Amino acid sequence: MAGCVSLGVCYYPEHWDRSLWESDLLRMTDVGITTVRIAEFSWSITERTEGNFTFDFFDGFLDLCERVGMNVIMCTPTATPPAWLTEKYPESLNADINGVRYGHGSRRHYNYNSPKYRELSARVVRALAEHFARRRCVIGWQIDNEVNCEADVFYSESDDGAFREFLRARYGTPDELNRAWGCAFWNQTYNSFDEVHVPRPTVNGAHNPHGMADYIRFISDSAISFVKMQADIIREYKKPDDFITTNGMFGHLDNHRMTREALDVFMYDSYPNFAYGTGSHPERGMADRGWSRDLSAVRSISGNFGIMEQQTGANSWNTWGMSPQPKPGQIKLWAMQSAAHGADYISFFRWRTAPFGTEIYWHGILNYDNRDTRRLCEIGEIHKTLSSLSGLAGSAYEARYAVVRDYDNIFDCDVDAWRRALDGESVEGLFRASQHLHAPCDYVYIDDGADVERLMRYRVLFYPHAAIMTEARSRLLYEYASRGGVIVFGCRAGYKDENGHCPMRSLPGLVGEWCGADVDDSTAQAGGDAPASVRWGDGKFPAGVYADFVTPKDGAEPLAFYEDAWFAERCALTRKSVGGGCAYYYGGTFTEPAAREFIARLGLAEPYADTVAVPEQCEIAARGGYLFILNFAHTESEVEFHRPVSDAETGGPLRGPHTIPPYGVLVVRV
Amino acid sequence: MAGCVSLGVCYYPEHWDRSLWESDLLRMTDVGITTVRIAEFSWSITERTEGNFTFDFFDGFLDLCERVGMNVIMCTPTATPPAWLTEKYPESLNADINGVRYGHGSRRHYNYNSPKYRELSARVVRALAEHFARRRCVIGWQIDNEVNCEADVFYSESDDGAFREFLRARYGTPDELNRAWGCAFWNQTYNSFDEVHVPRPTVNGAHNPHGMADYIRFISDSAISFVKMQADIIREYKKPDDFITTNGMFGHLDNHRMTREALDVFMYDSYPNFAYGTGSHPERGMADRGWSRDLSAVRSISGNFGIMEQQTGANSWNTWGMSPQPKPGQIKLWAMQSAAHGADYISFFRWRTAPFGTEIYWHGILNYDNRDTRRLCEIGEIHKTLSSLSGLAGSAYEARYAVVRDYDNIFDCDVDAWRRALDGESVEGLFRASQHLHAPCDYVYIDDGADVERLMRYRVLFYPHAAIMTEARSRLLYEYASRGGVIVFGCRAGYKDENGHCPMRSLPGLVGEWCGADVDDSTAQAGGDAPASVRWGDGKFPAGVYADFVTPKDGAEPLAFYEDAWFAERCALTRKSVGGGCAYYYGGTFTEPAAREFIARLGLAEPYADTVAVPEQCEIAARGGYLFILNFAHTESEVEFHRPVSDAETGGPLRGPHTIPPYGVLVVRV
Amino acid sequence: MAGCVSLGVCYYPEHWDRSLWESDLLRMTDVGITTVRIAEFSWSITERTEGNFTFDFFDGFLDLCERVGMNVIMCTPTATPPAWLTEKYPESLNADINGVRYGHGSRRHYNYNSPKYRELSARVVRALAEHFARRRCVIGWQIDNEVNCEADVFYSESDDGAFREFLRARYGTPDELNRAWGCAFWNQTYNSFDEVHVPRPTVNGAHNPHGMADYIRFISDSAISFVKMQADIIREYKKPDDFITTNGMFGHLDNHRMTREALDVFMYDSYPNFAYGTGSHPERGMADRGWSRDLSAVRSISGNFGIMEQQTGANSWNTWGMSPQPKPGQIKLWAMQSAAHGADYISFFRWRTAPFGTEIYWHGILNYDNRDTRRLCEIGEIHKTLSSLSGLAGSAYEARYAVVRDYDNIFDCDVDAWRRALDGESVEGLFRASQHLHAPCDYVYIDDGADVERLMRYRVLFYPHAAIMTEARSRLLYEYASRGGVIVFGCRAGYKDENGHCPMRSLPGLVGEWCGADVDDSTAQAGGDAPASVRWGDGKFPAGVYADFVTPKDGAEPLAFYEDAWFAERCALTRKSVGGGCAYYYGGTFTEPAAREFIARLGLAEPYADTVAVPEQCEIAARGGYLFILNFAHTESEVEFHRPVSDAETGGPLRGPHTIPPYGVLVVRV
Repeated sequence: MAGCVSLGVCYYPEHWDRSLWESDLLRMTDVGITTVRIAEFSWSITERTEGNFTFDFFDGFLDLCERVGMNVIMCTPTATPPAWLTEKYPESLNADINGVRYGHGSRRHYNYNSPKYRELSARVVRALAEHFARRRCVIGWQIDNEVNCEADVFYSESDDGAFREFLRARYGTPDELNRAWGCAFWNQTYNSFDEVHVPRPTVNGAHNPHGMADYIRFISDSAISFVKMQADIIREYKKPDDFITTNGMFGHLDNHRMTREALDVFMYDSYPNFAYGTGSHPERGMADRGWSRDLSAVRSISGNFGIMEQQTGANSWNTWGMSPQPKPGQIKLWAMQSAAHGADYISFFRWRTAPFGTEIYWHGILNYDNRDTRRLCEIGEIHKTLSSLSGLAGSAYEARYAVVRDYDNIFDCDVDAWRRALDGESVEGLFRASQHLHAPCDYVYIDDGADVERLMRYRVLFYPHAAIMTEARSRLLYEYASRGGVIVFGCRAGYKDENGHCPMRSLPGLVGEWCGADVDDSTAQAGGDAPASVRWGDGKFPAGVYADFVTPKDGAEPLAFYEDAWFAERCALTRKSVGGGCAYYYGGTFTEPAAREFIARLGLAEPYADTVAVPEQCEIAARGGYLFILNFAHTESEVEFHRPVSDAETGGPLRGPHTIPPYGVLVVRV
Repeated sequence: MAGCVSLGVCYYPEHWDRSLWESDLLRMTDVGITTVRIAEFSWSITERTEGNFTFDFFDGFLDLCERVGMNVIMCTPTATPPAWLTEKYPESLNADINGVRYGHGSRRHYNYNSPKYRELSARVVRALAEHFARRRCVIGWQIDNEVNCEADVFYSESDDGAFREFLRARYGTPDELNRAWGCAFWNQTYNSFDEVHVPRPTVNGAHNPHGMADYIRFISDSAISFVKMQADIIREYKKPDDFITTNGMFGHLDNHRMTREALDVFMYDSYPNFAYGTGSHPERGMADRGWSRDLSAVRSISGNFGIMEQQTGANSWNTWGMSPQPKPGQIKLWAMQSAAHGADYISFFRWRTAPFGTEIYWHGILNYDNRDTRRLCEIGEIHKTLSSLSGLAGSAYEARYAVVRDYDNIFDCDVDAWRRALDGESVEGLFRASQHLHAPCDYVYIDDGADVERLMRYRVLFYPHAAIMTEARSRLLYEYASRGGVIVFGCRAGYKDENGHCPMRSLPGLVGEWCGADVDDSTAQAGGDAPASVRWGDGKFPAGVYADFVTPKDGAEPLAFYEDAWFAERCALTRKSVGGGCAYYYGGTFTEPAAREFIARLGLAEPYADTVAVPEQCEIAARGGYLFILNFAHTESEVEFHRPVSDAETGGPLRGPHTIPPYGVLVVRV
Repeated sequence: MAGCVSLGVCYYPEHWDRSLWESDLLRMTDVGITTVRIAEFSWSITERTEGNFTFDFFDGFLDLCERVGMNVIMCTPTATPPAWLTEKYPESLNADINGVRYGHGSRRHYNYNSPKYRELSARVVRALAEHFARRRCVIGWQIDNEVNCEADVFYSESDDGAFREFLRARYGTPDELNRAWGCAFWNQTYNSFDEVHVPRPTVNGAHNPHGMADYIRFISDSAISFVKMQADIIREYKKPDDFITTNGMFGHLDNHRMTREALDVFMYDSYPNFAYGTGSHPERGMADRGWSRDLSAVRSISGNFGIMEQQTGANSWNTWGMSPQPKPGQIKLWAMQSAAHGADYISFFRWRTAPFGTEIYWHGILNYDNRDTRRLCEIGEIHKTLSSLSGLAGSAYEARYAVVRDYDNIFDCDVDAWRRALDGESVEGLFRASQHLHAPCDYVYIDDGADVERLMRYRVLFYPHAAIMTEARSRLLYEYASRGGVIVFGCRAGYKDENGHCPMRSLPGLVGEWCGADVDDSTAQAGGDAPASVRWGDGKFPAGVYADFVTPKDGAEPLAFYEDAWFAERCALTRKSVGGGCAYYYGGTFTEPAAREFIARLGLAEPYADTVAVPEQCEIAARGGYLFILNFAHTESEVEFHRPVSDAETGGPLRGPHTIPPYGVLVVRV
């Protein structure tokens, strides 16, 4: 099965009687699982008391794995420190904004900056790597678990001190910090770095926004440096072909840089059933189909990635709302969603439902009773299908356009409620439109060192609200357009600099120098105003929550105009030729109707229409010469093939109408 | 008036000028009140400074009581420690989960475990008992006030230490605790009891669920031991016929054990008007009629109980929403609701509305102005009616079936959100159905020492979601069925053990051995799924928030099947003969329509239909040879007597149609 | 332009490059701005390190102001202490109720009672006054900024100690405090002032309500004394004609006493666009038109006041929801609303939008880009219109009736949720009715020293819910009525004394002695009851959330009766002649329909109907011989002049129909 996507599972030998291990491993093998991930919450098993290491437990398990031919991904255990550790070294604990320390008994309650925690973490990682790295069955390492999950803010004394050092290194003098943070406002001027702290409670919950941006950068740096410290140790010991990864994609973290600097590959934890728990809103974010958006972001980190935890059962904890079991077909649907979007490895969470602990309702493949389940059968079916898709692993997802993202602006959304509202509306609208028009797209993350060649892969780039713009990024996009690319800006581009200040210059700031638009005023649309629409030729769509008033300049042409609001007849959209390509400046947000209009007019809609007609309720994804048609609906979907293709699994020919069952997947070779 | 229910009132001599006492007592006597409860918030009157006791104030009041022939229930004052005490001994205070101590100025801000608070409490209780117990007018003692009201979680240092001792006594070694708490999960293993704490803040608000169960048991034990300490002291001094009680029924407390071990009788505080305050939802829980459910639970603690505080006026504090005055008739309706359900003593709260303090809007019988009120008249009417119901006091409420409850599962609902959702739906549904079908029922609480004879009183038992099941309880229920009883299980029976673990065994676990059902899979119903229905012959009803997939075994017959959902056609209900009786296993929850179907099919509906036809908006209760018809509606109710009965109050005959006014009560002798 | 309202702007020289100052000042002059307010958040500029004062920065700016003829309002900088100060003297910081101190980085995080903060504040104020007071351009001083904004509760150690001193001074002995606070309730008795604290967390969030009333008085006193300390220092240095003020009107503060004791004039910050941000409810409070209510309250503090901050752009912070830009015309509309209601000075906030800091979205006249805006033009138009209204400044707003307010009852609303609900409904209802019936009204604040002559200005007084009544105030109102006034009481009058106790007397308490009403019972209307209506002759209106049952006495006549509720047919309204006037007692609240009925029947509606007919969507205000017609609607309004008047701006005659554009203002000379 050369080049096939392979399967794994998350297993907790420490949760089960040792007598179950062998039958568990054999039953895994039966359904095509070839790898287990273990040990990510097991520090006390290796180091039950400070400094005393024992390896018997996992040695025994690995012996068995080698006997049955099971591969192992070994984890470092730093996500859950032992009780003895936090009791003796409370400085290892994270705290809330009031300075109240978190206690033992859950997970991720530590901080990245305590020297003592770093020392003890390094020691246990070294002990594990030294002992287990040469084991034949070990094929890779996971560092920590779900970095920045749950807590992505840190307020301990250890963090307070480290934040000061971070700022000292960044700014050198207090006056540089005063300038960067705009401390002239509200008399926030510092005379010494010793006066600066991690955020503390304020009467109105507000903090200096530029300082908050630095605080988020500091958190990201802290996490990366903690992960890198572990990766460096493991690299001293691991076998050459073994990989280093971590799992999950969480906030206040530059996952791209973390992957670049510390990991070999990035892995994601995919739980689309989160869309269906008590209190969730399935109509928002396209429910489980919305995970395709996350997978697109993951793909931008590692073109071919892994899913370390792929959902197999009802999720949630004892402390919050119920969720249903995946309906028949959904486990396969979600696994194929991952594979279609670029996963080369899919590891299910978890083998058997936990019999105790907070995750007692985080269902695995098996129920408490250990009997075979329909979910286990479905794993077997996934294996069967993936085995037939040779050459899929390692191949690339095909997209003709991309949405541009960057961490400056992403972090700014966490600081700035206005920004957040714009981004939320546009990212959602573009995603929905791309799904409904079957127009696969990528996310492309850029920073000041980004290479224009990467951008040239795409005919069109949407950069929804590039509020923070730098010289380097503006030049990069200009070059992209000059060489034939089409760049579409959304409202509020370029009004901030890297520190989040709003410099005194006409908008859209740096990109205004070449994109053909001048924005002399703007307004949020809120609070009972009649919402503005945009008229673009025959098309009309809502302008969204914000509206820039655009004037074409430098030969740009006005394309669309506002209607219905008090600023009706002002221009809403301009286009200007730039070298071989062009730039659009759009004054609103990309609500779904707006995004549909752009995608259709720019010739991006329905790229596979010659091959097959598919209803809106199905997603199309193309990868490795295969076309994946994913039916997320609880009803059948009728598709129609306009030219002959073959069913990738059966090899049989397909032509004309074809029915995909509810939650069904059809993969064709084109 | 032999065997009549007697009346009392809550009175605060310390709130009023001494010159009012006598006229107050005489006006009480005028309307039939024979007992006053006093002194529950009066520590400073007896012990104004540490260790210096004075008794003049209450001696003066008791002298007057004896003069006018008023009985007195005396209270211990520990619910509100003096300011000097908490200022000098802050370890007496309870704290929030962050460890922030509560301050003086409200009530119930102390903790049960501070040695100093126990010492000072014991001393003041002894002083009071020693001085007042022999007083002729004293007929009983109330300990503390509303134990566990408001605060049923405790986080002080005193509690932290006591919790460790509780665990040390329960488990002996850390490894036993590690096993019971499933500490292998998330690396929570303890090496020493010194590492274990009361819950502290965590990043996600989650704590070890098995530890939480122990924490709730610890709170219950702490409260019981605090009450028992006081009861033991009072018993040294009280006159032989005087009783010891406490009031109110609150969470995290095994009220049954507390009553068994420390009290002579249990008393409840009944405030049905809570259903009608600002922001309340009168459509939920059947508004004031819902208090019948609480009274049924109270009855299971003390078959004949007291109401220590029976609502007489608009309730609430200065800090929260307004509530209306009871409408004419409601005070009597609610008092008769208490009497119908088993109260032998009804004490109204309070004589006159507080002129100051947080409860300035907790209206009593009289308003601030001290004039006679219509509410005072209504007390007189209650007295008149109750005086005509001879033999009622001491008699038993009549129920043909019961809902089984136990503290393991009740406490589990406080730990486990999934469980809580099931129980909430079923307890509510069974109650509504029993009310609308005029099918009086009991709650029966069982523990491992429960006696089957108690169960045999009932033809049918519903045990909605017996998630935690023990060998002893399974045997008990088996014996009940064998001897002719009908036991009905709801979904999720037996999937947990006493520690809240989910053992690896087929479901429904221990009861699966004899109840004829096998449950191989299940699902929550949430998040936009089409909700499943259950088809039972001609009947069809919603399955509720959860569905077990049931397979009959051991000769059981399948009775009902799911419809509408993806698991349609799976079996939803089985019945198996067990000796002279039988066991039903039902895979859903007891929504009201489901509960109606069960009650009707099991022949429990309308047991008084031969006597009288009553609309759904009225409750029927039978006690001591009387039939109470309670009209909770704001409209008249038409009833029709099918055979002659007599009006219990007038003695007059009733036959054929009869009208009960809005909020009216009709008691007939059958 | 004798007697014209003048214009100013808020300017932050420290936010901008010095090279911009001159062009900024000249552009201000161009649109008629003659004054700038500066320096309210600039402590560090003057005192960058402890005790070292420098004045160069503002000297440079003032030199320029004098050169271009710009007046300056100078501010004291105490609203935002320097970082060095709070780092070195953390006792200067305010704290939350848990005792957690607020940190640096926002504003108003200090407390009024720290001796060190008072010392350092006094020193910096003295330094500023000494240096700048004689400057020619300086015309006035603003103390601090928005006193009690954001934080109007204080829990620091400094406050805790000061509160004890406040109580010691107020009560002398603990037993006096025990009486005043009703400490007999819940055993709250204190033996020593040392046992009393600022509010601390309690298990139920409740505190002694009488203590809370004192706590609010204490906060008000603390703020006033802090402001007065600064004013006294400035008075030592300021030029004789320069004024002292502060800005904004916030809670827990007797703004009348503060103005009387410390200021020369009171200024308000007017942001009507708050009605239109994300999440606001424009249908509530009449949106921006609702600011007329606040302006009426401001007018009661200073008959002719200033607007220190008048909105010119979209408001809000980076941390919360978006708001739209004012629509064309609205800036002028809001400025004219201020002028119509009594403002003699209008200072816009702010010149140019902040380029950094938390208020980065608090838009000024100019955008970030510094280009001329339509908002700048609108300032010019405001200047033009106001310049034509000679004699307006210094003239009085005309009202024929007033709503009576007092701080005892206002503070009581912050303690008492029941009171708050009544007041909220009636203040809103009376305002809406006065607006829709074009019946301008005043607020008149009374205390025990109030003068009856002030009241005699009004034909009618509404005193909605005078719960707390004193002998002096009752006598004052009796004298008002005796001399021909009409006083209308709403429900619940007189049931509390000054401490918030409910004395044992028949209601409506002290005013019951002369107002002709007896209230023997009452009820809140809540929780699903059918809401009562009131029938007054032909009129019928909802009784609101509360209903007193009124009986006429002493020759009073019953005028209206309840309908629909269970207390239908009870009397709802009485009238009694009192000397030359009369007293009404109304048992409900002044919902808008109720208030309309009263205003119409008392002959207060449409006082300008002979001159002009105006639709409900416009406000009418009369001041200085001018009639202002303010169109708050987004549609045109048609008015019709019944007799000739002249357009105040053009001098042109107006007769018959006339159209006012959306958001337009018409000022006519009558």
